[in-house]
Amino acid sequence: MRLRAPYLLFLGEEASPLKAKTAFGLRDWAPERCLAQLRMPGCGVDLGLPDLAPRAAAQAGARALVIGVTPPGGRIQTGWTAVLREAVEAGLDIVSGLHTPLESVPGLAEAARAAGVALVDVRRPPDDLPRATGRRRSGRRVLAVGTDCALGKKYTALALARAMRGAGVDADFRATGQTGVMIAGRGIAIDAVVADFIAGAAECIAPAAAPEHWDVIEGQGSLFHPAYAGVTLGLLHGAQADALVLCHDPVRRHLVSWPDYPVRGLRDAAGPYVEAARLTNPGARIAAVSLNTSALAEADALQALDDAARTLGVPAFDPLRTPADRVVASILS
Amino acid sequence: MRLRAPYLLFLGEEASPLKAKTAFGLRDWAPERCLAQLRMPGCGVDLGLPDLAPRAAAQAGARALVIGVTPPGGRIQTGWTAVLREAVEAGLDIVSGLHTPLESVPGLAEAARAAGVALVDVRRPPDDLPRATGRRRSGRRVLAVGTDCALGKKYTALALARAMRGAGVDADFRATGQTGVMIAGRGIAIDAVVADFIAGAAECIAPAAAPEHWDVIEGQGSLFHPAYAGVTLGLLHGAQADALVLCHDPVRRHLVSWPDYPVRGLRDAAGPYVEAARLTNPGARIAAVSLNTSALAEADALQALDDAARTLGVPAFDPLRTPADRVVASILS
Repeated sequence: MRLRAPYLLFLGEEASPLKAKTAFGLRDWAPERCLAQLRMPGCGVDLGLPDLAPRAAAQAGARALVIGVTPPGGRIQTGWTAVLREAVEAGLDIVSGLHTPLESVPGLAEAARAAGVALVDVRRPPDDLPRATGRRRSGRRVLAVGTDCALGKKYTALALARAMRGAGVDADFRATGQTGVMIAGRGIAIDAVVADFIAGAAECIAPAAAPEHWDVIEGQGSLFHPAYAGVTLGLLHGAQADALVLCHDPVRRHLVSWPDYPVRGLRDAAGPYVEAARLTNPGARIAAVSLNTSALAEADALQALDDAARTLGVPAFDPLRTPADRVVASILS
Repeated sequence: MRLRAPYLLFLGEEASPLKAKTAFGLRDWAPERCLAQLRMPGCGVDLGLPDLAPRAAAQAGARALVIGVTPPGGRIQTGWTAVLREAVEAGLDIVSGLHTPLESVPGLAEAARAAGVALVDVRRPPDDLPRATGRRRSGRRVLAVGTDCALGKKYTALALARAMRGAGVDADFRATGQTGVMIAGRGIAIDAVVADFIAGAAECIAPAAAPEHWDVIEGQGSLFHPAYAGVTLGLLHGAQADALVLCHDPVRRHLVSWPDYPVRGLRDAAGPYVEAARLTNPGARIAAVSLNTSALAEADALQALDDAARTLGVPAFDPLRTPADRVVASILS
């Protein structure tokens, strides 16, 4: 899946910035893909981008309208129909990560066919995924893995890709979730593929590359999650990662929404990840720890990073709080 | 997914018994679900069941025509259209595990709607699968796991369910693949579900039961398979198995169709399976070994079983060659 840029970021009539995380994520991590914003009456969110209507945005070079908000239920709102059709008629693709298929918006599919533009549901995977070959491929890869969901694997991968490029490394962020796909402009929401093809999809997401090229792959789920570990293991095998960055929240005691499942400590999590990764890449190793220290004061955060680094004998960082240079060096070493 | 029985087993014009494994599997493992066979001119297969045309089969009590052969490409043959429509018009459901969707057979969907019968593509999972809860549920469960695909996990589970019932245990076979679903009359082809729902589907396949009830769950794939381990891990977590039976082929050197991947020995395979299973059931243990000794002469087979039992300290059997009583006792202990 490849998305055409630059984007017109659609904010609807959303009142709360908390419901516009997709839009803020795009603005912060892919500013070169973000041209303008489109706000309906009542919208309380401002990305600091120019306000443009669909036709003006298309004239300014926009190629797609991206839905950047998540309304209640994750559904496309009926009040959006007119503006989505207007965007299609202006020649913009529509990109959505919501549950409602874009095809189900009245008249939108016909308008898109007439205009020759695409309706892209980012959750929907390609139809023709292959089974994994397991064959070692060229290029180098680092994968973010975690002790739970929703603790910073995407931010870790984005920050590392940015830092590696900043250090002169030929590196790409590789997306495995819907927001990541919108940021990268390509990728597959891997938790939406048919089970037989998880590892095969991962092989497609980060394909063979030049020997010195690094793909920095967004992780999903956790090997220790009672619902999602299958996704995590298939991604781990398909990624054939040389380096793993283990993401962890030092204050979280149990898995989010699964209170019966305690979060493993770094030491208990590292071994199983390395063992599983070595099936497809015998050289796989934990290269760094990424801690989500958002709940800690500065001194406590630094202490937690210090403890984590000592526990696993690798550098530790918080991508939103501390520099990544030692982590990058460890990945490259 | 629940299938109506008894079945009329459709053999088409298949010349070779090797391509009728589904039909033979049904006859051998679910004779009570098999009423008759339907053979077209040129058919070289005989299940030893009465030959009945669709209307006669329906009058004799059949509720579904089951496609029991796998033609080249796994596709429904155009020459079958007339007889499939005849079956529908006689009031039979059609059950298929082939790749071609039954809806795509010309006229069949309309005929099925008119007759009020179902077209059941066994590969297609239910639309409304839940995410796994991970909550411990009542009843007891045994899961067949393996060092590779295609080495006897389904036969192991079928033989154990039969032996456990023979020993007076309240036990059900639980199907996770298409042939298994046809045999059991219910189940989900778990490798066809969306990745996020693997463990959730497994929770549905073997739901909460009476405290002394045993579900004997068909395994899929292998934790050490570069393409399919995600399916295996999700099934393992969702199954919450008390007992694992480790299936192995003692003469296989590498994974079928993945020649770069050697098959693990029993000792190297047992630990990771138990560790992964204990996430959702801390009491999980390897209760027995099931060896596929089909390539060995009698004396060598018995020696291999002896070696396997000594290696893991649990009983070993070959479901097609040796009795299951010690294995059943070990599972129940």
